Amino acid sequence: MVGGGEGAFIGAVHRIAGRLDDCYELVAASLSGNAQRAAASAAGLRLDPARSYADYQAMARVEAARADGIDAVAIVTPNYLHAPMATAFLEAGIHVICDKPLAISLAEGEALAALARRQNKVFALTHVYAGYPMVRHARAMVAAGEIGEVRLVQVEYAQDWLAEAANQSEEFQRNNWHNDPRRAGPNGCLGDIGSHAHHLAGYVSGIQPDQVLAELHAFTPNRVLDDHVQVMLRYPNGARGMLWSSQMATGCENGLRLRVFGTKASLSFDQENPNELWLTPQGGCAQRLTRGRVRSAAAVSATRVPSGHPEGYLEAFAQLYRDAAAQIHALDAGQTVPQSARDMPDVDDGVAGLRFMQAVMESHRQGSRWLKFA
Amino acid sequence: MVGGGEGAFIGAVHRIAGRLDDCYELVAASLSGNAQRAAASAAGLRLDPARSYADYQAMARVEAARADGIDAVAIVTPNYLHAPMATAFLEAGIHVICDKPLAISLAEGEALAALARRQNKVFALTHVYAGYPMVRHARAMVAAGEIGEVRLVQVEYAQDWLAEAANQSEEFQRNNWHNDPRRAGPNGCLGDIGSHAHHLAGYVSGIQPDQVLAELHAFTPNRVLDDHVQVMLRYPNGARGMLWSSQMATGCENGLRLRVFGTKASLSFDQENPNELWLTPQGGCAQRLTRGRVRSAAAVSATRVPSGHPEGYLEAFAQLYRDAAAQIHALDAGQTVPQSARDMPDVDDGVAGLRFMQAVMESHRQGSRWLKFA
Amino acid sequence: MVGGGEGAFIGAVHRIAGRLDDCYELVAASLSGNAQRAAASAAGLRLDPARSYADYQAMARVEAARADGIDAVAIVTPNYLHAPMATAFLEAGIHVICDKPLAISLAEGEALAALARRQNKVFALTHVYAGYPMVRHARAMVAAGEIGEVRLVQVEYAQDWLAEAANQSEEFQRNNWHNDPRRAGPNGCLGDIGSHAHHLAGYVSGIQPDQVLAELHAFTPNRVLDDHVQVMLRYPNGARGMLWSSQMATGCENGLRLRVFGTKASLSFDQENPNELWLTPQGGCAQRLTRGRVRSAAAVSATRVPSGHPEGYLEAFAQLYRDAAAQIHALDAGQTVPQSARDMPDVDDGVAGLRFMQAVMESHRQGSRWLKFA
Amino acid sequence: MVGGGEGAFIGAVHRIAGRLDDCYELVAASLSGNAQRAAASAAGLRLDPARSYADYQAMARVEAARADGIDAVAIVTPNYLHAPMATAFLEAGIHVICDKPLAISLAEGEALAALARRQNKVFALTHVYAGYPMVRHARAMVAAGEIGEVRLVQVEYAQDWLAEAANQSEEFQRNNWHNDPRRAGPNGCLGDIGSHAHHLAGYVSGIQPDQVLAELHAFTPNRVLDDHVQVMLRYPNGARGMLWSSQMATGCENGLRLRVFGTKASLSFDQENPNELWLTPQGGCAQRLTRGRVRSAAAVSATRVPSGHPEGYLEAFAQLYRDAAAQIHALDAGQTVPQSARDMPDVDDGVAGLRFMQAVMESHRQGSRWLKFA
Repeated sequence: MVGGGEGAFIGAVHRIAGRLDDCYELVAASLSGNAQRAAASAAGLRLDPARSYADYQAMARVEAARADGIDAVAIVTPNYLHAPMATAFLEAGIHVICDKPLAISLAEGEALAALARRQNKVFALTHVYAGYPMVRHARAMVAAGEIGEVRLVQVEYAQDWLAEAANQSEEFQRNNWHNDPRRAGPNGCLGDIGSHAHHLAGYVSGIQPDQVLAELHAFTPNRVLDDHVQVMLRYPNGARGMLWSSQMATGCENGLRLRVFGTKASLSFDQENPNELWLTPQGGCAQRLTRGRVRSAAAVSATRVPSGHPEGYLEAFAQLYRDAAAQIHALDAGQTVPQSARDMPDVDDGVAGLRFMQAVMESHRQGSRWLKFA
Repeated sequence: MVGGGEGAFIGAVHRIAGRLDDCYELVAASLSGNAQRAAASAAGLRLDPARSYADYQAMARVEAARADGIDAVAIVTPNYLHAPMATAFLEAGIHVICDKPLAISLAEGEALAALARRQNKVFALTHVYAGYPMVRHARAMVAAGEIGEVRLVQVEYAQDWLAEAANQSEEFQRNNWHNDPRRAGPNGCLGDIGSHAHHLAGYVSGIQPDQVLAELHAFTPNRVLDDHVQVMLRYPNGARGMLWSSQMATGCENGLRLRVFGTKASLSFDQENPNELWLTPQGGCAQRLTRGRVRSAAAVSATRVPSGHPEGYLEAFAQLYRDAAAQIHALDAGQTVPQSARDMPDVDDGVAGLRFMQAVMESHRQGSRWLKFA
Repeated sequence: MVGGGEGAFIGAVHRIAGRLDDCYELVAASLSGNAQRAAASAAGLRLDPARSYADYQAMARVEAARADGIDAVAIVTPNYLHAPMATAFLEAGIHVICDKPLAISLAEGEALAALARRQNKVFALTHVYAGYPMVRHARAMVAAGEIGEVRLVQVEYAQDWLAEAANQSEEFQRNNWHNDPRRAGPNGCLGDIGSHAHHLAGYVSGIQPDQVLAELHAFTPNRVLDDHVQVMLRYPNGARGMLWSSQMATGCENGLRLRVFGTKASLSFDQENPNELWLTPQGGCAQRLTRGRVRSAAAVSATRVPSGHPEGYLEAFAQLYRDAAAQIHALDAGQTVPQSARDMPDVDDGVAGLRFMQAVMESHRQGSRWLKFA
Repeated sequence: MVGGGEGAFIGAVHRIAGRLDDCYELVAASLSGNAQRAAASAAGLRLDPARSYADYQAMARVEAARADGIDAVAIVTPNYLHAPMATAFLEAGIHVICDKPLAISLAEGEALAALARRQNKVFALTHVYAGYPMVRHARAMVAAGEIGEVRLVQVEYAQDWLAEAANQSEEFQRNNWHNDPRRAGPNGCLGDIGSHAHHLAGYVSGIQPDQVLAELHAFTPNRVLDDHVQVMLRYPNGARGMLWSSQMATGCENGLRLRVFGTKASLSFDQENPNELWLTPQGGCAQRLTRGRVRSAAAVSATRVPSGHPEGYLEAFAQLYRDAAAQIHALDAGQTVPQSARDMPDVDDGVAGLRFMQAVMESHRQGSRWLKFA
């Protein structure tokens, strides 16, 4: 693991996710770029001090050289470090599990994708919501034509934590790396959560917009990056859509919600109730599909406990780790990746996301014009 | 009543609405422009044949001249007839209750507003969703500052009946006046339901956008008018918003849903569950406010039955009729209109709607550009 | 109308219900036993003073003798008056629409049923919840065998108004006729709302328990009648069930909820969301059936507005009035009652309810023993 | 771990629960009483073969003697083995984490409780639903008097898997240990899930019934044990309640639902939506309290991820393991158990459950009579 030292939320989540299905053992880490904090964090996790690194490049080099070196690395640092770190580990021949976004520019992301292909390594991108069984079930339904041709996509991701943060001290604003273009990259809300919304929409609908029209906005006083994004979408098949993401949506916790309308039926998914998926046929009544009752291969293979026993965010995260493990085993053994592990978001999803975000920013810069980008 | 002959859905609704609170008696009508059908419909309603008219202008003239002539007329015809008919009755000194939209052009609507003012007559516009007690409660909360300054408005109105209709015969398409620009006016989904969404958003939030950026679209083959509308909104106070309305939203019945996010709290209302309103404070937990439990003057005065006894669409419609009756009584008696009756949508709401629709169409024509219109 | 003078909630509801579908005209009434209040109330309703009566027996006699006398009477008085009043009008040859409960004893109810049969008059009992389209749809589904054989029935009716009332003055308690055995009859919560729960369960499930085991309880200090009822049920076919009704259920508005479990599927209905009904097949996923989307004859014939336009309590009430009108027309014309009007609760439902309540009270008196009563 | 070999559902859940918060390492096990299967299962889990036992008594003895012997054992076998196994490990001085029910008779359970006290060992009983943050929040609210005095308790646990199973082969019925009194103990549904319902009700409400009146029933043909339980409850403070549990409730997945009504407010919790808890004040509107927004110590200490990121069943299970670890550390170090770990269900909860179940069976045997048992 790189990053994720004491107090880092997402590092702890990654560790639970790796542990949950018993596919990984944490044996080496560079938990901080600061040697002292790295060591302290490593001790807290009972790591062998010899395998705690302050320098990620040293870690890549040394671990690659060890007979019992790590098979895979999890990168859980601020955005701007994702690409250089992933590059270092890929070059050292180590599989990568990387927090999203893939990189802070499209060019950087494309280079990484090319490298991953060249090195023939697994590159998992933790678009965690793709790990939910009902999201996978929805994706499988759409792919099987069960909702007909997709005509409308409505996706939103609404939080209120910046509305909260807007009331915080100037110092808070300064230290919050999510608002620092150098560390977060060129966008705020768009990259933080808009990228998840974009990914989920494409993951389920099976289609990608080729035109966007966007407005970015910052409500928070003194804020550098956007805290609110609204985008209109056009798809190559004539479908239309809207994406809204906001971190100023008063009262919203983690409101990622997707609706996909096909010619035969529509689907609705709400991340805060991930054990269910709503299916409504044209002119008909809604069905509340539940994780334990739909017995699709897609849902079953992403599930641990029976019907009526809720799973959540950590299980979805663990699913990506489990998929990555299955891909790594297959690749290392020269075998075919099992079908059930192929739904893992990867470096290509990351590139698609960066391409989308670049187009959104460009449309906004041009005064919210339709921009064809694919 | 003008329009609303046999088989007309909205005519029957208006009649129930007028009857429900016992404020009106139906004594004269022009139920169809065809004399034979007008007479047959009148007989079905046990109207005095002498007061059944085929010609609305005759009706206005004759009724105005009778000592026991009608006080008010309900206009429930296709859109293009609203303005000429309302004009005739206003000129005859008769109060008007008119189905939305007010008119099929802004100019026509503005003339009507001027006339209503000049004649000093009540002009109720049946934006029915403004009759729900919880909509009024929401409006009162916003007006009282309980959610702080409004920052975001998200409104949508999704139906699937045109997705259904798209599969119908060419003949169906031809006879459906909702798709005939001569009778429906220059827009389809925008005027039918987008206008309701626009009205509801303004009615509750208390603010009107002054810039729009819009895309209209028709999915249905051979369709003349739009069946899908998406609009981005900017408000004078810096607020942002989105409006989506579609009649192609597979599986949706009558999905009018509004969310208003203020600096202190947010509100969410769903027309299909009109007895409740969700209030969520910033950083806090949602409250499900119910019609019978909030005891605001706004909600109580629009309510008939106790807590837990659901009211619905017909009661909301009846509320507008009750408000109009109270305004008519007050005006005719030279008294002040009681506070509780002032929430009735009127001719000015109609003009605001037409102004919005005109801007939306213009933005669309210009390739989805931001258009300042107010 | 008998009863329902100024300030009486249920009288006003009955008047709206009669008016809504335009099947009745209110022409005569005995709105109070007090002559002055009767006259004042009649004036408020613009009734002909000659047809306002203080004495219900005079009203029955005089109206029966008039050529233009009433066809039907609505009885909306406290419980103990239902039977004597209904008797007077039936004997005068006038159809009866009566608030529930039918009577305050089983013997009284049985005599009334016999009389109604002898006089061949319509006797509608306003178990209003049987007027909801989705309740009728549920009933039709069960009758058609769509959920298999009924195995379990769970019904509850929870309110909190007595928890509120418990805090009121002694004077309030004294004046509240719901707590006066002389006027309310021998039970409180059981008769007020338990009787509705019992009726709904039988109306939908199509089966009646033949054994009960019950506990009545009064939480309110100084309360004479029960405010809380819990009953276990056994059915002749081996089915089991539970009925709970309480007016002390803190936070509950009007929580009447029924679940019926068959061998093939289960149904769930909640009075506070009456436009929907949940159907779950064994081992499967729930479907949210909606009023406008199920196109059964039972639902359609009890509906006024399209899909997605909510109906509520007043429409359900109006449905019973409409059914009664259809029955009255058929009976007076010597025709067969149309299928759609046969779902109206009648005097036999009232007798079944009284029989159930008597058994519940008897089981309670015997220390909560299983009591076979049918 | 004892039990939980290949194919055993609950064994796998316990292992994830132990791993999730990184408090345990699985180093020894008796995964089956059959030596070959024990070894195969151990190999599947990469256990040291020397520490895989076929005989649990040997395991207790040998592990107790090793310097690096286990600190605690998880017992996940069929019911009848819980008590003898727990006895063996307690006597060997090893802490116990035991699946519910504690034992198959009250006497056995009481002996175990006495032994645990004597040995001064931690005894965690995995009433998993007590691990949900919102259950703990509810418990804390009641304890703090926030809902007033408890007056009504309604708890139900409805599943449909036996309705499914009822259609299975006779062989299935034979092999299903849940229907074998020798292995399951003297009750079926009551012990399987009724015991969870009983525990949850007491855990949250803070009160225990002292009188029950019950009916057990078996719908499934040829079934030996009950598959349906209904119980009426009386509490020492005058409160009333009902408990219903059924494995024949067509369409229900894992429907454990609790409502507690106090004099000031009521609480409602549904296991299938464990991230929320509904609070409704008397006469007021419901609040949907969510895991991430209530910041009580009780909820926060049982939580891993932020607001809006759902947790589920495995996290609840892990919570009990985490609590047990904290208690074990404290006890072994001679320290006070931290407040946050004290909410763990223990051997005394198990005894209370057995006492309740015994009274329920006795009331049933006596023809459903009120039985005072505490």
